[in-house]
Amino acid sequence: MNTSPNNWYVASWSKDLAVGEPLAMQVLGRPLVLWRGPKGEVSALDDRCVHRLAPLSRGRCEGANLRCRYHGMVFAPGGEVVEIPGQDEIPARARARAYPVLERHSWIWIWMGDPARADPDRIPAMVGLDDENYYLGAGTLDFAADAQLVRDNLLDFSHISYLHADSFALGDAYAKVPPRIVELPDGLQYQRWLENQELMPGNSMLVDQWSNYSFRAPGIITMATGAYPLGTARALDLGAPDPSLPGMNITFTNQAITPMSDRSTRYFFSWGPRRDCGTPELAEQMMALAYRAFTEDKEMVEAQQRMIDLDPSFPMLGTHSDVGVFRFNARLREIEAAEAAREAAEGCARVHLPVHAGAAE
Amino acid sequence: MNTSPNNWYVASWSKDLAVGEPLAMQVLGRPLVLWRGPKGEVSALDDRCVHRLAPLSRGRCEGANLRCRYHGMVFAPGGEVVEIPGQDEIPARARARAYPVLERHSWIWIWMGDPARADPDRIPAMVGLDDENYYLGAGTLDFAADAQLVRDNLLDFSHISYLHADSFALGDAYAKVPPRIVELPDGLQYQRWLENQELMPGNSMLVDQWSNYSFRAPGIITMATGAYPLGTARALDLGAPDPSLPGMNITFTNQAITPMSDRSTRYFFSWGPRRDCGTPELAEQMMALAYRAFTEDKEMVEAQQRMIDLDPSFPMLGTHSDVGVFRFNARLREIEAAEAAREAAEGCARVHLPVHAGAAE
Amino acid sequence: MNTSPNNWYVASWSKDLAVGEPLAMQVLGRPLVLWRGPKGEVSALDDRCVHRLAPLSRGRCEGANLRCRYHGMVFAPGGEVVEIPGQDEIPARARARAYPVLERHSWIWIWMGDPARADPDRIPAMVGLDDENYYLGAGTLDFAADAQLVRDNLLDFSHISYLHADSFALGDAYAKVPPRIVELPDGLQYQRWLENQELMPGNSMLVDQWSNYSFRAPGIITMATGAYPLGTARALDLGAPDPSLPGMNITFTNQAITPMSDRSTRYFFSWGPRRDCGTPELAEQMMALAYRAFTEDKEMVEAQQRMIDLDPSFPMLGTHSDVGVFRFNARLREIEAAEAAREAAEGCARVHLPVHAGAAE
Repeated sequence: MNTSPNNWYVASWSKDLAVGEPLAMQVLGRPLVLWRGPKGEVSALDDRCVHRLAPLSRGRCEGANLRCRYHGMVFAPGGEVVEIPGQDEIPARARARAYPVLERHSWIWIWMGDPARADPDRIPAMVGLDDENYYLGAGTLDFAADAQLVRDNLLDFSHISYLHADSFALGDAYAKVPPRIVELPDGLQYQRWLENQELMPGNSMLVDQWSNYSFRAPGIITMATGAYPLGTARALDLGAPDPSLPGMNITFTNQAITPMSDRSTRYFFSWGPRRDCGTPELAEQMMALAYRAFTEDKEMVEAQQRMIDLDPSFPMLGTHSDVGVFRFNARLREIEAAEAAREAAEGCARVHLPVHAGAAE
Repeated sequence: MNTSPNNWYVASWSKDLAVGEPLAMQVLGRPLVLWRGPKGEVSALDDRCVHRLAPLSRGRCEGANLRCRYHGMVFAPGGEVVEIPGQDEIPARARARAYPVLERHSWIWIWMGDPARADPDRIPAMVGLDDENYYLGAGTLDFAADAQLVRDNLLDFSHISYLHADSFALGDAYAKVPPRIVELPDGLQYQRWLENQELMPGNSMLVDQWSNYSFRAPGIITMATGAYPLGTARALDLGAPDPSLPGMNITFTNQAITPMSDRSTRYFFSWGPRRDCGTPELAEQMMALAYRAFTEDKEMVEAQQRMIDLDPSFPMLGTHSDVGVFRFNARLREIEAAEAAREAAEGCARVHLPVHAGAAE
Repeated sequence: MNTSPNNWYVASWSKDLAVGEPLAMQVLGRPLVLWRGPKGEVSALDDRCVHRLAPLSRGRCEGANLRCRYHGMVFAPGGEVVEIPGQDEIPARARARAYPVLERHSWIWIWMGDPARADPDRIPAMVGLDDENYYLGAGTLDFAADAQLVRDNLLDFSHISYLHADSFALGDAYAKVPPRIVELPDGLQYQRWLENQELMPGNSMLVDQWSNYSFRAPGIITMATGAYPLGTARALDLGAPDPSLPGMNITFTNQAITPMSDRSTRYFFSWGPRRDCGTPELAEQMMALAYRAFTEDKEMVEAQQRMIDLDPSFPMLGTHSDVGVFRFNARLREIEAAEAAREAAEGCARVHLPVHAGAAE
């Protein structure tokens, strides 16, 4: 859980939070209740009634408010208690911590740190489930592992050639062709041309495969892929293809890694074709493949976590493939150090300064 | 488990301990074996063979004695070893700790502290399953929570209006009408008139509802309820109705909360009508309702315990409804302080002096 | 797990390790991967890829080598890394710890300590599953208990009369007749004549029953049993019968107790008749009986372990029947002290010197 609370974390798919049905979630070890009021508005509080710490997620929505089902205390969306059964006065300290939340790109995002810093512009451009240019499916998987291991998994694509040899079946190109890595203000972008590849299993037409993969703090991923006529990579000098360039199999995926606790991580993902390259049925097939492959990740990462926990002092050995892992973790430290410096300059008390000890570094 | 071992704890329903069938139980974190000899007499020992600590509850009754099934050592009801296979002499220290036990009101009670203080008169008057004036059913539920939370649940009836809104369906009277609280030598009594109530769901006759609820250390509950003609409460100046006063729906419940370990508690309960107010079938219906409602308690209290354990430092906020909780916990401290003082005066070594830190105080 | 790593431990039945199918095991708390190469040869490494600690037991055999299925690193049988995808040079420290292994008597043995001391001659004579003179069945059971408790169980046969009263049904002779105990270089041998016994349940012919039971460090058992005409025990002055002496019901069992972790132990066992005393069907019946009885052991030992863990300070009381337990544990300490002294004399760094605190001593 070595990321700053001063980030937007994905707490849920928008579609999974129904009006009037409170939802329990945990982010950075903190139990949360989310609920959607009658106008669709989303609120988030600590999932503990201030009275006896019963979880509010077992409560009952009443209009925009949430009533604890144990002894009946009522909370407004801002966290203030507005009713205590059996007494008239309400003490000022009767207030649950409220968290900034917003909905964007079909996700509910929650800000776990200083509310004054909750800048919606920090959420990157993505493709929502309702985007008219794409057919996307939506998935969720929980990993019994630290989010660091899940992030590291997604930062070293060399595993695709081995762990996903049978599912994605992409051969060993990902292990052998290093990406071009570009710095982003909040992370890294991996641009990779795999030249002279088969279009897909079952279609041996040779093409240049392009992928553009952005990995942002605290664990937000967007990836565009496409196939282009042989020679495109060289023609572009390995640069990014323009979106208007005609291609095949153009797809998009959004992914988010949310640390729930030290040993549990929720992984949200969507995937599917651009509408001119596929159908809703293709999106379903791609999601089935994603579930298969990501379950391979889950099983391996959970096994890795168990090995680490058996002897946390056992050393790791860095390889060339870890460059993405190293650079992202270093980038994360830079971002957080800059944030700490800015806060110090402003005289703010820092909410949380995590110590980063990248496992393989 | 913040109660003194110098108390009678309910270890089992009498009916659940058959002749010749040892029963494993745990009270205050201490593993116990109970068994019933050929004359029906009940004995209780530490559930550890003195030889190799195998549980005696896996043993075999032989007459009044209990043989360990591992290497065959035999224990008398008083704990002394009376046979060691393969050797003739029996060392004096070959003795398991025995506990005072007695049967009363259909329960087996065990005294966990200084045997010299095990006074049977400390067990209050109750209604046994075989009482000729009542039809009572018997139930048991285990809570994965500290006994303190189970006691607190049963000391603040305001939760009936919310947690049991659909099961007991008693409206919000319990949350709004405070009880009259009377001190008992070993606890508190809550007397409560709910005036001008419907007789029961489905019968809108208006009555005054009476309940007399005693809560005694270490967690022993008796409760009598009844409905009386409108105006009775005022006529009695909110005092207790005489047992001979004609009433409707007169019921009785016995309940006992036994701390097994820090995070497990066994809850024993009976409930049913006075024979002139009901039938055995009604007792069965009432028990079905009790199981439904107490399972609501169990789920809420276990969820509350998990929230507390996630962050034991998280503060609670007292409300007016907590007055019963506060007063009982204070009463418990007084009783135990008086006991400690008496022991000190007698020069006795105190077996155990628990530190009381009422969670909400 | 109070045995020295400088021992051969049984890691698996030979039959349970197929060519090309890596097997995960744990010995002395150390995760291991075993695999069998194309020629049948067995290798064993730490079950952690040196890169990211993913378990190699989820890997893929490639010829004699093993490839990690996460990012594709390849290990030779000696532990050295021979391929790192995406890079050419292989650092010298890229090497997993390899363990001496050998196959003998149908088991795979692994040496957990100093490889220089891995002397195959320390493995005692036994009867393999393929021995032409015996019909043997093979079994495995895991105990959720410390290996010490499993060893102690098998060092005090008095439990046979009680725990196995219904399964082995041997009466109380084992609890009453002490064995003759002979010292071995690496353990103890228990020779026992039970005179004037029925041949077997259902056959009341009276015979003298012989058993010769060797218990060697770290937990290796061989046992020969047989029935001889009444009077044989006295004629031999309670000495061992010559193998050529005609007998009935002659059987052999091999057993091994392997500590996996502090609270998990794997128990390997074979049992069956000498071919002139039985059939393959009899071996099957004997194995069914062994599973029944050893499951009784498992349940009792696991219950004993739970009692110990509830209060590790609770004292045990030694009895005469514990003489075998005491003597073996003392023998183990002697053997390990001698080994430590030898190593000190040689100026070797000792890999591990366990502290022995026999539970009942």
